[in-house]
Parts: sequence; C-alpha cells; structure tokens
Amino acid sequence: MCELLGMSANVPTDICFSFSGLMQRGGRTGPHKDGWGIAFYEGKGLSSFHDPSPSANSRIAQLVKEYPIKSHVVISHIRQANVGDICLENTHPFSRELWGQMWTFAHNGQLDKGVFDLPLSHYYPVGTTDSEYAFCWLLGEIRTAFPQAPEDMQKLYDFIQQCCDQLRALGVYNMLLTDSCSLYAYCSTKLSWITRKAPFGEASLTDTEMVVDFCKETTPQDVVTVIATVPLTDNENWISLAEGEMVVFKQGLIVNN
Amino acid sequence: MCELLGMSANVPTDICFSFSGLMQRGGRTGPHKDGWGIAFYEGKGLSSFHDPSPSANSRIAQLVKEYPIKSHVVISHIRQANVGDICLENTHPFSRELWGQMWTFAHNGQLDKGVFDLPLSHYYPVGTTDSEYAFCWLLGEIRTAFPQAPEDMQKLYDFIQQCCDQLRALGVYNMLLTDSCSLYAYCSTKLSWITRKAPFGEASLTDTEMVVDFCKETTPQDVVTVIATVPLTDNENWISLAEGEMVVFKQGLIVNN
Repeated sequence: MCELLGMSANVPTDICFSFSGLMQRGGRTGPHKDGWGIAFYEGKGLSSFHDPSPSANSRIAQLVKEYPIKSHVVISHIRQANVGDICLENTHPFSRELWGQMWTFAHNGQLDKGVFDLPLSHYYPVGTTDSEYAFCWLLGEIRTAFPQAPEDMQKLYDFIQQCCDQLRALGVYNMLLTDSCSLYAYCSTKLSWITRKAPFGEASLTDTEMVVDFCKETTPQDVVTVIATVPLTDNENWISLAEGEMVVFKQGLIVNN
Repeated sequence: MCELLGMSANVPTDICFSFSGLMQRGGRTGPHKDGWGIAFYEGKGLSSFHDPSPSANSRIAQLVKEYPIKSHVVISHIRQANVGDICLENTHPFSRELWGQMWTFAHNGQLDKGVFDLPLSHYYPVGTTDSEYAFCWLLGEIRTAFPQAPEDMQKLYDFIQQCCDQLRALGVYNMLLTDSCSLYAYCSTKLSWITRKAPFGEASLTDTEMVVDFCKETTPQDVVTVIATVPLTDNENWISLAEGEMVVFKQGLIVNN
C-alpha cells in the first residue's frame, strides 16, 4: 500500500521531521519503493519534487530532508505500484490548474478499472494510473459544477465529498487534495491526523531514531496539522478518520462541518 | 533581461555542462537574480525545479548541477523581473496539461500591458507575470483550434507561429515551448542554437572555468541541440535565429519547414 503525508499550517513550516519518518518507509522499513513525490506551497506558488526511484535512496529526497523548505500546505506520497508502470509520469502527487490555482492530489489505494469509464471533461491524464485518472475526473467535475471559484465553500465541500464517495464505491480511496489554501483529507480505509499547538512537546518518530522537541521549533501561536496513512510518531494522540469521512483543514484548523 | 536555455536530444542527456554556465549568469556574471527554474522530461513525465532566489546561491540549483538528470527535452530560465513580484508563482518555466501531455513554457522579454486584455479560455494564470498570461492565452488558443492533438503537425506549427507573431507585436517575445516531445524556439530579439553530433569536440564555457570534451560523453549516434539567449560557449559555431523565426526541434533535429 502507498502512504500519504500531508500538512496544513498557519505559519510556513518545514516538514523535515515527518518526511524523515516517511522516507524510511520508502524502502528501509516499508515496501513502498516504486517512487515518491512531494508538493510544497509558498503562497500560491507550487514547488514539487518527484522521483520514480525508492525514497530511501533518492538524492532528491535527501535534498528535501535536509533543506527546510517552509510551506503552509504540503502533500507527499510514497508509492507501491498497483496500476500503471513505475515511471515519472505515474508518480504522485499530480497537479492541475483550476481557477488560477494549482491543485495537487495524491491517492492511496486501488480502484476498479471501471474508474477509466468515468467521463473526462477538462483534464486528461499524462500517465496510466487509476489515481491520476480519478483526479482528472474529480477536478473536471468540480470545474463543470463551479465554473468560477464559489463563494459558499460548504457547497464545494459537499460536492467534493459526494465525488469522493463515488470513487470510494470503486475501491480503496484515501485521498489528499489541495487548492493551495485548503487541504482536503478523505478516508476510505486508513488516514489519521494530529494537530500540534501550544503547549508543544516532544515527538518521537516510529521509523527512525529521531526525536524533536517542538517547543524549540515553534512559537505559541503556531498551529500545524499533520495527516498520514499510519501515525508517524509513537508518543502522540493521533485521530483516525472514519470510512467515508472528509476533513478540510485551513491554516491547520478544521473548516468543514 | 532574462535568459533562456533549452535542449532537445535523441538520447537522454544531462544538461549539467550548459546549466553550469547559465547558473553563473544568475547572480555572479550576470544580473539575472530574480529566480530561476528548470523543467526536465523523462518520456512523458515532467520533473521541474523552481526557486525564487538567485541561481548562483541556490541549494536546489546545486543539486541540479551535480545530479545528472538525463532528459531528452529541457527548458530552463533565469529571471530578471520586469512585470510581477519575485515569488515562486512568478518563476518560469510554467506548465499546463493539454491533450494528456504536460506543456512547458518560458519567456524572455517584456510585453505591453495589452497582453492582459487577450481573452483566456481554458487556462488561467496563478501568478502576475505577462509571461504566464501569454502562455495561458497561447495554450488556450491552441486548445480551441485543435480540441484533439492534430495529425498534420505542420498545421500546428503554422498556428503556433501566428500566435507568437501576435505576441511579438506586443513587445519582446523570445520563447521556448515544449509538449514533452517537440521543442519550439521562437525568436523576437535574441536566441541562438547549436547542434552537437559526431564528430564531437571540446567546448569551453564563456562564464566559468569549465571545458567538456563531448567525445568522452557521447556515442556516435547522439544528436543534442542546445538553445540559449546568448551562446554559452566561446569556441563553437552557434546559429542565431532571425526576428520572427521559429524553429521546432524533435530528437535534436529540426522538423518544421
């Protein structure tokens, strides 16, 4: 199974700590070795890194781990290939532009080949994965329903929830999606999150020898939410999403009903 | 003035040599210090790196320089900001998907603010540059004229030429554009190219102490074309494009009439 990692924060924050844990699962402590990718946002701008090679060995992953790129939204993915060859164009996360915003998407799970029968209207896949196809369908549905960015965000949340339910009916569909501001986390089988805010404490990664004292890294106003397929630390209280549950984070806080 | 760098090759080739020369112009030997970016293609897959900070200092640029990512098409750009703030979303090159291919674009020059009156149909800018706006207009025009990828490529070349002529009427418009296979080079004021093939020789970079013996790096079948705003080497015969001239390269060779 692939693994997802996401972050939503109210201050530009680096994800080095969480990413170090996730990286180990890409070949050392986990079987997820068929590519990885990560997308950072600085304001509206998207910076993304993709590598079809295992993350535990990847030179690009080493840069990301050591170079604390500060971001308020992050989506990352380590792949264990099911549908589609191992190649750059099949490496999550995937991005497309809608309403002058770069949307980014990553998926954990496998969908029935019926997904390829869903109609595409605006966006078309470059690669051959069920995941990218699902993203192209989802974003096309959003664009058709909302030709401009809506004022009433709850209408958009409800619409995205319905689309995700439809995809979940085709198989396992755990998803992270962002429009550069909000981070949508949709659970099919496995997705957990944790919000760190003051008073901060120490966190210990499950997969590697690393402990971070968040107190030293943060200010009292910081709010940072991390979302992962499987909790990354063994000494904090992660919250698991239920099947079919979608949580939308903005600046680290939940914004949907 | 910004600088462009492009490559079209018939074998996956690294651009470290040319990029080393270009990097110096991003702060050390040149005034182009308002961000840089580079896009590589491995088959259909796009891997891009952007940094709003000067390339001569950039950690990401260091990775690109030292890690020989092999690619058959490359577009790179160093920016000297004219229109639009210095920020990630204003950093070339820009990419959008059309016909299930990732198209990438970079522009050297400045366009009259009339460019912002051109109608957009499918693609919308994330940032505030004249360049990204021009790209969104151009790709939208292509998509409207050709809802599917055309069989007759010359029709597409002619159409892109006409659109570029229209943009050139609004100011200085030197452009590199790719659909992941072909590399379009359009000249307004300054653009040169060189095709390296057997028998290969030595090349000496103008901007830094570096000489490469291409004979050692290549096979007799290799064809590699490099395109740059200003020739990067001082001992080879670069060809300058004329004003309004467009050359399309595929696998290192010219394919348009």
